[in-house]
Amino acid sequence: MIEAAYAHRRIDLMSWTTYRDRLAEDPVIFLPVGALEQHGPHLPMGCDAILAEAMAARVADELDGLQLPALRYGYKSQARSGGGQIFPGTTSLDGATLTAMVRDILREVVRHGARRVVIVNGHVENQWFLTEGIDLALRELAHAGTSMKVVRCEYWNYTPQSVLESMFEGAFPGVDLEHAALLETSMMLALHPQLVELAALPEDAPGAFPGHDVYPQDGRGVPASGVLAPARAASAEKGVTLIESTVAAMVKALRCEFVL
Amino acid sequence: MIEAAYAHRRIDLMSWTTYRDRLAEDPVIFLPVGALEQHGPHLPMGCDAILAEAMAARVADELDGLQLPALRYGYKSQARSGGGQIFPGTTSLDGATLTAMVRDILREVVRHGARRVVIVNGHVENQWFLTEGIDLALRELAHAGTSMKVVRCEYWNYTPQSVLESMFEGAFPGVDLEHAALLETSMMLALHPQLVELAALPEDAPGAFPGHDVYPQDGRGVPASGVLAPARAASAEKGVTLIESTVAAMVKALRCEFVL
Amino acid sequence: MIEAAYAHRRIDLMSWTTYRDRLAEDPVIFLPVGALEQHGPHLPMGCDAILAEAMAARVADELDGLQLPALRYGYKSQARSGGGQIFPGTTSLDGATLTAMVRDILREVVRHGARRVVIVNGHVENQWFLTEGIDLALRELAHAGTSMKVVRCEYWNYTPQSVLESMFEGAFPGVDLEHAALLETSMMLALHPQLVELAALPEDAPGAFPGHDVYPQDGRGVPASGVLAPARAASAEKGVTLIESTVAAMVKALRCEFVL
Amino acid sequence: MIEAAYAHRRIDLMSWTTYRDRLAEDPVIFLPVGALEQHGPHLPMGCDAILAEAMAARVADELDGLQLPALRYGYKSQARSGGGQIFPGTTSLDGATLTAMVRDILREVVRHGARRVVIVNGHVENQWFLTEGIDLALRELAHAGTSMKVVRCEYWNYTPQSVLESMFEGAFPGVDLEHAALLETSMMLALHPQLVELAALPEDAPGAFPGHDVYPQDGRGVPASGVLAPARAASAEKGVTLIESTVAAMVKALRCEFVL
Amino acid sequence: MIEAAYAHRRIDLMSWTTYRDRLAEDPVIFLPVGALEQHGPHLPMGCDAILAEAMAARVADELDGLQLPALRYGYKSQARSGGGQIFPGTTSLDGATLTAMVRDILREVVRHGARRVVIVNGHVENQWFLTEGIDLALRELAHAGTSMKVVRCEYWNYTPQSVLESMFEGAFPGVDLEHAALLETSMMLALHPQLVELAALPEDAPGAFPGHDVYPQDGRGVPASGVLAPARAASAEKGVTLIESTVAAMVKALRCEFVL
Amino acid sequence: MIEAAYAHRRIDLMSWTTYRDRLAEDPVIFLPVGALEQHGPHLPMGCDAILAEAMAARVADELDGLQLPALRYGYKSQARSGGGQIFPGTTSLDGATLTAMVRDILREVVRHGARRVVIVNGHVENQWFLTEGIDLALRELAHAGTSMKVVRCEYWNYTPQSVLESMFEGAFPGVDLEHAALLETSMMLALHPQLVELAALPEDAPGAFPGHDVYPQDGRGVPASGVLAPARAASAEKGVTLIESTVAAMVKALRCEFVL
Repeated sequence: MIEAAYAHRRIDLMSWTTYRDRLAEDPVIFLPVGALEQHGPHLPMGCDAILAEAMAARVADELDGLQLPALRYGYKSQARSGGGQIFPGTTSLDGATLTAMVRDILREVVRHGARRVVIVNGHVENQWFLTEGIDLALRELAHAGTSMKVVRCEYWNYTPQSVLESMFEGAFPGVDLEHAALLETSMMLALHPQLVELAALPEDAPGAFPGHDVYPQDGRGVPASGVLAPARAASAEKGVTLIESTVAAMVKALRCEFVL
Repeated sequence: MIEAAYAHRRIDLMSWTTYRDRLAEDPVIFLPVGALEQHGPHLPMGCDAILAEAMAARVADELDGLQLPALRYGYKSQARSGGGQIFPGTTSLDGATLTAMVRDILREVVRHGARRVVIVNGHVENQWFLTEGIDLALRELAHAGTSMKVVRCEYWNYTPQSVLESMFEGAFPGVDLEHAALLETSMMLALHPQLVELAALPEDAPGAFPGHDVYPQDGRGVPASGVLAPARAASAEKGVTLIESTVAAMVKALRCEFVL
Repeated sequence: MIEAAYAHRRIDLMSWTTYRDRLAEDPVIFLPVGALEQHGPHLPMGCDAILAEAMAARVADELDGLQLPALRYGYKSQARSGGGQIFPGTTSLDGATLTAMVRDILREVVRHGARRVVIVNGHVENQWFLTEGIDLALRELAHAGTSMKVVRCEYWNYTPQSVLESMFEGAFPGVDLEHAALLETSMMLALHPQLVELAALPEDAPGAFPGHDVYPQDGRGVPASGVLAPARAASAEKGVTLIESTVAAMVKALRCEFVL
Repeated sequence: MIEAAYAHRRIDLMSWTTYRDRLAEDPVIFLPVGALEQHGPHLPMGCDAILAEAMAARVADELDGLQLPALRYGYKSQARSGGGQIFPGTTSLDGATLTAMVRDILREVVRHGARRVVIVNGHVENQWFLTEGIDLALRELAHAGTSMKVVRCEYWNYTPQSVLESMFEGAFPGVDLEHAALLETSMMLALHPQLVELAALPEDAPGAFPGHDVYPQDGRGVPASGVLAPARAASAEKGVTLIESTVAAMVKALRCEFVL
Repeated sequence: MIEAAYAHRRIDLMSWTTYRDRLAEDPVIFLPVGALEQHGPHLPMGCDAILAEAMAARVADELDGLQLPALRYGYKSQARSGGGQIFPGTTSLDGATLTAMVRDILREVVRHGARRVVIVNGHVENQWFLTEGIDLALRELAHAGTSMKVVRCEYWNYTPQSVLESMFEGAFPGVDLEHAALLETSMMLALHPQLVELAALPEDAPGAFPGHDVYPQDGRGVPASGVLAPARAASAEKGVTLIESTVAAMVKALRCEFVL
Repeated sequence: MIEAAYAHRRIDLMSWTTYRDRLAEDPVIFLPVGALEQHGPHLPMGCDAILAEAMAARVADELDGLQLPALRYGYKSQARSGGGQIFPGTTSLDGATLTAMVRDILREVVRHGARRVVIVNGHVENQWFLTEGIDLALRELAHAGTSMKVVRCEYWNYTPQSVLESMFEGAFPGVDLEHAALLETSMMLALHPQLVELAALPEDAPGAFPGHDVYPQDGRGVPASGVLAPARAASAEKGVTLIESTVAAMVKALRCEFVL
């Protein structure tokens, strides 16, 4: 989803000459990564990419950075963090495919002359294959006699603990279970209310899982709706708070990281 | 780029329950594929994906199909069809990466229950790696005891010869050289004029290449602007004609192909 | 480390005829997975494999299962969970290598006739590549017209919350930071005290990390010793409690999972 | 097929000491690439390799170059350019296999000390996987701190337009459809008449295809004989003209390219 | 090298219709595999492929089989069996590339309807990667619900011990050291004397190696000529004896194997 | 199997600080490689790894070296050297997996600062995939601007011919057939008599194979027990002689190789 306010930071919406000129200032390049994955009957399946893009756009804007087109397909959904691969619509990549995407894009961005990249991840399951893609790219860059600095972050790790506590009144179920639940629903209400069907919000009990994972995935413990924790209390207002506080923390951390 | 008129066909903007329900009608699923590649100083680098998406959206709308998020990174640019990998901004994948993307997505779509897919390609260089991805997916599906029907098309192959002849007055330079030139510029003017900087249009002579390709790419024969053929005559009006005639031909061909 | 009490469950220590005969009872097969990774100046680098093996051996013994040789090399160490790849001695695999190991072993175990496998993981960073190996094996098995049931677990997820709380007096720093720290040191003291050099235990402050990860890894936030949280309070007694309570919970959960 | 007149240029027919001595003059190394693919009932299936070898041998002879053994297996046949994978006898490689062959051979040739290679392609479908093989080799060579110059050509791109026009009387159907047809049949008659069974030449109508490709390939539009365009007018005399004019143009272009 | 007497068995020299018709008799398909590797100053570098082809052609002729084009590039030369990768001219493949070639070709041959293949290997170093290629093909075929019978042989294993003993007078140095030496030189003299430069035969002492292999290869123990054992006693007469006795043994063994 | 006398040389049993300190003396690092493979009804399936470890430990001790954890899974068993993949319990890797394991471990050991590695192989079938792993690691290290010296050995190649002749009274059947037979049984009796069930020793006739290998493996020629040659004459005393003479020869050869 391209938000008009941030379109001028999208690399795919600018010409190569404009991009070349902006590179002279050594901007931080943002790569959002999401998934195409069930998010309950009330949220669109592209939710993880949409939220990662929204975070990246805002932070890039604050830091005068640029933004690459998001990766909209991610790693395989797991029962305890996304309901698993049993839902129609969830469209996932092999780990090696996602890793290769990241490696290839980083290799190219370095060829352009960029040296600072932030990968903003919006899908729990992506994390390790992104990490491997970064590692393979850096190994190859070392062979080529160059390097770059890459930050990989899951955006929710910046959301202030105080914000979470006040929203959940002390009962935050953890990031994994917060799939298609209060946090994501609130942020989507704040950003794209037309894509949220609140009326479809289920009354399912939250997901419940043993200490282990079972394969083939069989849906045990996964609510039939795919919503892993209660989302009834979601609101656009909460979404705004979540986005603003998370973006502020990211901006602060990345300013520090890149000495901006 | 999501065009509002077609947003309701985007799989990533619908919930899994909506998708599941629509699948019952055995819709054709469209997967647009483009690239992030220099398109001269006047067009955005995401041009190939934007045009493939626009074509796919219109055809899907006519055929009551659904549309997957586009692949926005493509295979390596070649001198004679995109100026080559020497431009900053051109961000390309290894062939195996693109092939794996297609294979993975087709595997998942079949798991959902879909059996009819059209890959709409907007980047010359993608064609063979898309083909390989389809072949690998079909081989794997055969092992799994199932199958699907996949159409792969380059959208420009549907543009009526008569339209091209009238626009070029008999001097059509061929699809390869038509990179960032009259056709793409016209269609972008018709679809997203705000993304076209006509003032930046160069006066370069067209690209000129020997009978072979040379590696490492050295830029010989490639106009400095990256525009491979004259684009001065581009207009939104021509763009509308191109889009409408191409879409009409695609709709007709695919109706026939899928007996719709 | 082969503990004499459990050696009779080791597949590599029995003949193929013995193994064949035991398979008739459809035993659960355990595959421990660890790493070769720095664990501070006081613990041996094979710690993760040793602990995973110890857990697996005890649980297998309770459930009358069999045990495969452990995988003693794991995925790349990350700063926040193992200090990262900057330490000499840490000897890690590419993600694809670990994934292939798991896929190949599962394929073979099914050929033998086994249908129930538990992968006991002792190294945080392995989790997702193990998962991918399981998924690739199951996909291939489905092509071959067969299947199996695989459980993947990180053993620490079974440690009762009450045990952790009493040991940390409410200040459990989380599994990631508990690298080479109180939990692992205590269990090693209980199992193999001769491999623990308590005198070498450092006085480092605990690890401290931002919300993101930075690559190339630069050691920021990692204590010089590689110990990520205080280990001073470790004791063999605590180790016994940890092992016994964890094993008991695993036994209970797996009995339920496999209807034993 | 080794033609006696050119055998002294074949690297596989000379000793390593002879090869080493000739390398001192920095010769251009030619690598012909073909396929094992149906070529109608009248031509042998190795046709593409035989013709690529014949072209390469003659050009190498003019330029005092050397010739590697041809790659005799190529990428998968497509309906519109070779009839597709539905014919017995067509024996094709995965794209990644062909790419790896090219990468490996280029890596070795550079180790020998050669720096100039021409890949002469005789099979339409090979082109992009050859290109990828060249790119991967050059990337690796850059890591090793060296480079080379590689030309990839499809030999038919050098055939003078005037020759084609006079032969087809203005109705040249395009390179793709010219599979097992007038051009290839004529050249085979000129080179190896004993391998051509003119009596078996079919009366099929030419191939006819929509704007897209369909998978799984189903043979639609492909003449039953596998001959995609009329070949009746083929003659050895035309073959001589084709070979001589094409070789002359290649020699001229490569002399210029390599400053010979 | 195509020998006229056997050309009618070459699949690449027949049309697809001829091949299809011959397949009806369920012929054994022969795939020779060699290498491009130094063979001393007196033998051509394609020696291993030439000899494997010659053996395959004669055996195929006796058994009414068919012959595929040889693989003329093989696995990396080792010091003790081919002098190693230090010679210019030796042009070798990664193991995975050779494995993929074999897998792909077997997959295709089965699609044609053939079910019996003999791989005739002429290069010591190829053996295990051929084996892996066969294994991967058979695994895939099993997934596709079919199978085939594949024989892999090194042709020298059929040479009668009595023949070797009489030629070497009890001092047979073993197959590995017999590189570019008495056996290969004699057979080449019998088959293609014009490709042998006896005058260039070196006086080097034989190769001498420790119990282990050292990497990077440094040429220790390898005679400067690349000839690993004395070849002075080579003669065309011996070559005829070797070829005839080896072929006879292969024919006998394969008749038995395939019940011909 | 960790033998107490050599435990202090095991890298996985020392801390990273100890390892770091010992690296200062540039020790030779030993990596034993075995397999999980049937070894008859009287030997444990981990036999190859156990023996490779025992050899490596003794040699390392003599040369003041260090020892990595063994690779306990190897390449696929072949009929003539291990009975083949038809036995339950034999648990083998794809060639590419074993190759990747070796490449990854060598890469890491170089990062630690080590430059001398000996791979001690105990499983015939591993040899070529180990070699490929070494080659790929050295290629990559060259790209990174560094190198190392790697020795790969099969331990039995050091056993003095005189020892074999006296034990077999001139009838040594060759290394391949000596699977689970006199040599391995004797050495296991010397090292771990509790793991040998002499009573289960079969009376099978030895394995008998044609000049070729057949796939799919069908067990022809393989004794039902999996023991490929007579083992009745095995004794602990012979085992001691074998181990001591082999170790002595290895020590001598490696002292020379590494100038120790």
